[in-house]
Amino acid sequence: MWRDPLNSEHKPGDVTAASLSLRPIFWDGDAIVILDQRALPHRETFIRCTEATQVIKAIRAMAIRGAPAIGIAGAMALALGARHIQAADLQTFRRKFLRLCTLVKAARPTGRNLSWAVDRVYATIARGEDTDVFDLQRRVREEADAVLREDLLTNLAIGVVGAQIVPKGARILTYCNTGSLATAGHGTALGIIRSAFSADPEIRVFACETRPFLQGARLTTYELMAEYIPVTLITDNAAGALMARKRVDLVLVGADRIAANGDTANKIGTYSLAVLARAHQVLFYVAAPRSTIDPNLADGGAIPVEERDPREITHFRGSPVAPAWVEVWNPAFDVTPQALIDGIITEVGILRKPFGRAIQKALKASAPER
Amino acid sequence: MWRDPLNSEHKPGDVTAASLSLRPIFWDGDAIVILDQRALPHRETFIRCTEATQVIKAIRAMAIRGAPAIGIAGAMALALGARHIQAADLQTFRRKFLRLCTLVKAARPTGRNLSWAVDRVYATIARGEDTDVFDLQRRVREEADAVLREDLLTNLAIGVVGAQIVPKGARILTYCNTGSLATAGHGTALGIIRSAFSADPEIRVFACETRPFLQGARLTTYELMAEYIPVTLITDNAAGALMARKRVDLVLVGADRIAANGDTANKIGTYSLAVLARAHQVLFYVAAPRSTIDPNLADGGAIPVEERDPREITHFRGSPVAPAWVEVWNPAFDVTPQALIDGIITEVGILRKPFGRAIQKALKASAPER
Repeated sequence: MWRDPLNSEHKPGDVTAASLSLRPIFWDGDAIVILDQRALPHRETFIRCTEATQVIKAIRAMAIRGAPAIGIAGAMALALGARHIQAADLQTFRRKFLRLCTLVKAARPTGRNLSWAVDRVYATIARGEDTDVFDLQRRVREEADAVLREDLLTNLAIGVVGAQIVPKGARILTYCNTGSLATAGHGTALGIIRSAFSADPEIRVFACETRPFLQGARLTTYELMAEYIPVTLITDNAAGALMARKRVDLVLVGADRIAANGDTANKIGTYSLAVLARAHQVLFYVAAPRSTIDPNLADGGAIPVEERDPREITHFRGSPVAPAWVEVWNPAFDVTPQALIDGIITEVGILRKPFGRAIQKALKASAPER
Repeated sequence: MWRDPLNSEHKPGDVTAASLSLRPIFWDGDAIVILDQRALPHRETFIRCTEATQVIKAIRAMAIRGAPAIGIAGAMALALGARHIQAADLQTFRRKFLRLCTLVKAARPTGRNLSWAVDRVYATIARGEDTDVFDLQRRVREEADAVLREDLLTNLAIGVVGAQIVPKGARILTYCNTGSLATAGHGTALGIIRSAFSADPEIRVFACETRPFLQGARLTTYELMAEYIPVTLITDNAAGALMARKRVDLVLVGADRIAANGDTANKIGTYSLAVLARAHQVLFYVAAPRSTIDPNLADGGAIPVEERDPREITHFRGSPVAPAWVEVWNPAFDVTPQALIDGIITEVGILRKPFGRAIQKALKASAPER
């Protein structure tokens, strides 16, 4: 049974201790505080949000990122926003709250966890048995807290499940950041690395820097080094050469949205890694909570892929690195077809091909015991 | 017959006009002036070299880069250095000059053109029929001038030869910078794009930014935009997604060293592009002068791959983007096996499989008529 790490003291060496020290978002009284990940690892700055719109802005600007963390931020934004809704009756409250839900959902389009979290929180107030507006506001806050708490437990479960597929002394290539900063704590793909490392200190990690936002260079190396997990930073374009030298046993990535057939949207560049892994007979696993699965989409072709500001590529911290006015294609994600994926690691087990059936079964399974 | 572009007036629209306006290196009286490509495209700064060691330093620091341009810089450094050699007799001069040749050759290890150019210049003074030290110095300078002049003509020939394989209205993905800035002018892969575009304005280019040095973002887009050739900038990790969307017809890259069997060393990331091109049935061509071919190396396994300073990845213009002390793997090049290459475009024709025979024949062929 899982110990609740939010309510227990952490001993040194505790697998959850270090991963909890990095909290991407938390309540401070009636305000939401977001750790601004754009300045990490060199500056620790916080954004204090007293309005839901500020949280939405922070999500859009990628001050907080990572599909599960975005989901949590969305739920918390609803709790914050709900408290400010002026409504004389329940119907007015619900109508205004639904509008807020739509706004929050639209903050970023590709990740599934955001709309999942918003739907989940909305469901608690859509039921009829409430007494007054205060009761609805309380229930929204409680549900948002549950989303946060459960995500951590889910990640710890993913870590334990996923550690099983990590070969002894594995050299793992990972991408973007899927750690504490991308979730409520511990992480998905990085959570598996944490869990595996606690049992096998021979594990080594290669972190792709992950252009243009450099989540790998800035965040993943930072999280791993904080826990003394050996990590080597490479440019994204060096992954092929690394595999050709037989220096990678396993590619482990997160996910932003998984279609019903297993096709997986994740950070731009993930697809290239999957093609390279297949060409070099390297294992390729995706790690994600079930909240990342979108059973309504038959396949990856229907996943909306966000295209972001060209300045993310043409500028670096405000300084230009390309000619002004150059045309840019800056998709934030790509879609890896299920055929290139060896397994999807969730909190209820490892899903294998055919993914369609495995996903249906996983969505029906009860949550792991806590 | 080729018109000598160095000695003719350029009309607007002349394919060589714009490509000659960017000169990576030139003589200014008795000094060598190097355009510092690290600051491009936003600052045009020049390094004035009055000693060969300054040129060597500029090559090492990548103020000048691109295998053919490095070869030219090496030859010019020898001419500059030869003039400063104090020697009472021919034997002393030759001994000191040989030492200089060794120094210049060692500036960067992977590119073939540097050692090719040094060997070529050295050969002119190794012969016995000279009269005095001044005569040797003059011959070194003349040979260095010939290396520069011939490289431009070679590139123009590569352009004409290569334009044949570019499909009508092709969408070409290119990598790093292989243009005027990497050569004496016009360029290799980019020279083909220039030549093809002058006949077919429907051609479109995708330029990978090319981490960590961003030659694609900074230099290739700059050269193409100067000639109104449509170009879209992408991160290196987006190439796979772009191919999956069927938006690329042809990948066209340069080379730093080509082994006798056709295995090709080029900028890190080229190998990943080749694997992706094959997986998506996209044509993959290498463009290079014959001086890039190293007939002494049986295959790519023997090509020395330079590993550069971690700070190129961990820092951006002096400001850190990764934790201090993070371990880094920063190879400047990777090797693409010949099996993944559809053809090698040289100034004497397109080499096709089996490359071993084609390369032998190409090395024996006489230079294109001028």
